[in-house]
Amino acid sequence: MSLCALSLTQAAADIREGRITSAELVSDCLERVDEVESKVQAWAFLDRDHAMRQAEAADGRRKQGKAVGPLHGVPIGIKDIFDTADMPTELGSPLWAGRTPRRDAVVVARLRAAGAVIMGKTVTTEYAYFHSGKTTNPHDAGRTPGGSSSGSAAAVAAHMVPGAVGSQTNGSVIRPAAFCGVVGFKPTHGLIPRSGALLLSGALLLSRTLDHVGVFARTVEDVALVAETLVGFDEEDPDTRPVARPPLAAVAASEPPLPPRLAFVRSPAWEHAQPVTREAFAELVRTLGEAVAEIELGAGFARGVEMHRTIMEVEMAHNLHRDYEKGRDRFSAVLRKLIERGRGHRAVDYAAAVAGIRSLNVALELVFDEFDAILTPAAPGEAPHGLETTGDPIFCTTWTYLGTPAVTLPLLRSAAGMPLGVQLVGRRDGDARLLRTARWLVATLSSTRRRRGQKERTAGRADSPRTGRRKSS
Amino acid sequence: MSLCALSLTQAAADIREGRITSAELVSDCLERVDEVESKVQAWAFLDRDHAMRQAEAADGRRKQGKAVGPLHGVPIGIKDIFDTADMPTELGSPLWAGRTPRRDAVVVARLRAAGAVIMGKTVTTEYAYFHSGKTTNPHDAGRTPGGSSSGSAAAVAAHMVPGAVGSQTNGSVIRPAAFCGVVGFKPTHGLIPRSGALLLSGALLLSRTLDHVGVFARTVEDVALVAETLVGFDEEDPDTRPVARPPLAAVAASEPPLPPRLAFVRSPAWEHAQPVTREAFAELVRTLGEAVAEIELGAGFARGVEMHRTIMEVEMAHNLHRDYEKGRDRFSAVLRKLIERGRGHRAVDYAAAVAGIRSLNVALELVFDEFDAILTPAAPGEAPHGLETTGDPIFCTTWTYLGTPAVTLPLLRSAAGMPLGVQLVGRRDGDARLLRTARWLVATLSSTRRRRGQKERTAGRADSPRTGRRKSS
Repeated sequence: MSLCALSLTQAAADIREGRITSAELVSDCLERVDEVESKVQAWAFLDRDHAMRQAEAADGRRKQGKAVGPLHGVPIGIKDIFDTADMPTELGSPLWAGRTPRRDAVVVARLRAAGAVIMGKTVTTEYAYFHSGKTTNPHDAGRTPGGSSSGSAAAVAAHMVPGAVGSQTNGSVIRPAAFCGVVGFKPTHGLIPRSGALLLSGALLLSRTLDHVGVFARTVEDVALVAETLVGFDEEDPDTRPVARPPLAAVAASEPPLPPRLAFVRSPAWEHAQPVTREAFAELVRTLGEAVAEIELGAGFARGVEMHRTIMEVEMAHNLHRDYEKGRDRFSAVLRKLIERGRGHRAVDYAAAVAGIRSLNVALELVFDEFDAILTPAAPGEAPHGLETTGDPIFCTTWTYLGTPAVTLPLLRSAAGMPLGVQLVGRRDGDARLLRTARWLVATLSSTRRRRGQKERTAGRADSPRTGRRKSS
Repeated sequence: MSLCALSLTQAAADIREGRITSAELVSDCLERVDEVESKVQAWAFLDRDHAMRQAEAADGRRKQGKAVGPLHGVPIGIKDIFDTADMPTELGSPLWAGRTPRRDAVVVARLRAAGAVIMGKTVTTEYAYFHSGKTTNPHDAGRTPGGSSSGSAAAVAAHMVPGAVGSQTNGSVIRPAAFCGVVGFKPTHGLIPRSGALLLSGALLLSRTLDHVGVFARTVEDVALVAETLVGFDEEDPDTRPVARPPLAAVAASEPPLPPRLAFVRSPAWEHAQPVTREAFAELVRTLGEAVAEIELGAGFARGVEMHRTIMEVEMAHNLHRDYEKGRDRFSAVLRKLIERGRGHRAVDYAAAVAGIRSLNVALELVFDEFDAILTPAAPGEAPHGLETTGDPIFCTTWTYLGTPAVTLPLLRSAAGMPLGVQLVGRRDGDARLLRTARWLVATLSSTRRRRGQKERTAGRADSPRTGRRKSS
């Protein structure tokens, strides 16, 4: 197996133990970039020499016997909304072309402190909203990779980096991860600081209430490892809290003390589910048998999507208003319309939408008292054809609104061979347990399918197994 | 000195050391109630037998050698917006007459845990907003005691209790404390949990962004002691944080390591200051000499009052909307108008007002890097005549908006003999230091005036000294 296909956890261990060097790994990833980037277009900025210099510096520190961090020498892609002091940060907008920040965003600084090589900046949609960038889906260049973290998802899926960082205000981590067939993890709101992301003219964020930092990789252990280096209090992000760091990687790698129970929730968005999703989930629920029970959420949850929209439109209109005033002609039409809708909302409706987060989370406690996680689709179907849109975030909206942790797993596939994501949602601050349940689900399905494959082969029907490493592009 | 005139700290120490019993103290306070309550009208609910039974139970526990809390046996008045499981809580509104909650508000529970006797419920304006209750000013029954914590301030000033709890969404602790001539302390926003206060139909609070719990007593040490029992994380109040409890009482009682420096800020509200206030502050600043420098806040602070109004109107309209829908005809006209204004605000203006809290606090850091506290009036002048209004909160508005800790000290007096408050404002989370500075200011002025009094007497001008215990009613 070429180095660029190693899991992030494996690559980090190999570097730490001296089996490979960071320079070898980064060099192999850059070769992969040379092979596929002209088609995938995942990078907004990538300076090969700068990446190699970081890798060589990491190798040098290790040789000198200096301390190595958990991501020592591992290349990570950064969505181009997070500030980097050594690379441009252009936010996917022509208004910010050539912008060079002076400081690293907190997540970038934490990755560097953990020893990571900051490989480059990945393509984002305009201001992490809906207007597409140039990236294509590594599984089919005629399809969208999803958005807004388009480049991060595609770069990981195409083996150009083992891990990447993105953000989600609606469905911008879970949806592209599902469309590109990788693991995407959006932790609890406020767990990872957002300081230095989308640092517009004086604005704090796109939407303080809804913005989440998320992580892409190819295994559950990998997203746990990267996320664990990013979580923790930051005094510039008012939604982070000074509490102990959850041991995401250790818990994710552990066995559940009891077999987990999953609540299959068709989600308030089920009417948007395409036949491919309905069929795949029906089979998935059958396969999982007693581990799953289907439940319905109360009527209040149906309003989540509208509440989310109110908050997103108002907060984006507020935070983007200076950019809008000075350069609305260089805004996409879809973003201009968002700002105008945002300006029309009444404050009491906004206040009710914000208050709803709390009351619906209280209601959700009843579900999590009985179940380890909610099982639900990550998207309506496979990645749509065309690059004009990034697809529909509707299956993520409710969980983004509620601030609950969510992870998507590339466990299903459409007849066209495109990946379909299985989303698991946990209780707020139950991130470590959610990842443990996710790893359990991957292992359980993998062994079930292996057994079934053997049985089918024994019975003379040699279907190609549906599991195994996904081959990109 | 009769027991009811003891400072709270002294009374607590006397009970702890066995010099007096809680029953003797509470009985003396009840005698004081009998003397003055017909005029002052501070209590919405007071059951003498129930108070005495709590006092006797406290004495019993002490005699049995059980642990005693920091407020063991000390009677405290509770503003009638805080739920009490053993007394009605009517929120100052006819809509809630006879309401009997099942649980104590968190502050009530914490007071009981500290050993306090919950003396009774003190009069609040309607929903802690502007529509007056029945209470009069103990210094002049023809004047307002201020509001909305009218009864708490008046009960402490009239020696009916040594301490009381109130709340401030605009100027509802600092203003009545100043008008009644007691010490009022409003800690940093989020330091004291508000759970169980103004627990209306499904609403969390009056205004999550602006609501503060505050404390009334007759000395700085006393407010520090009571506040310290109330601070700390509460999972039901999303603005409290799981951080270590600040040692308010110990720091307040300590000497500043260096002479404090005060920044005299005329405040964005200075145009509202009456001649009595302008003259008194000019003399105060002269007296304090080098300890004070006058500074001007930046232009951004001028918008604080408008920002505050937007947030208060929107959040109250949101939180009171069910009460409004079912009983607006039993709302006062002033409250009805507030709700209607609140419904008219645009969400983006509200979002801008909320965001301004953070940016103005950042600007204020520059002041607190140089000064220990801001020195500013607590109110435009002495308590106004008449009981129809509770006076103007304008000198509190900016500090409530910013969530900074504030304390008012009864250090000045008008020609009519009415108290005037001196307000000190500290940096967010600098509560302990603010109280230390406040105690220092009281001591410094007291010794300066003593010296001056001696000098004046020596020179044959035997003016009556302006310091000394304030005599109520």
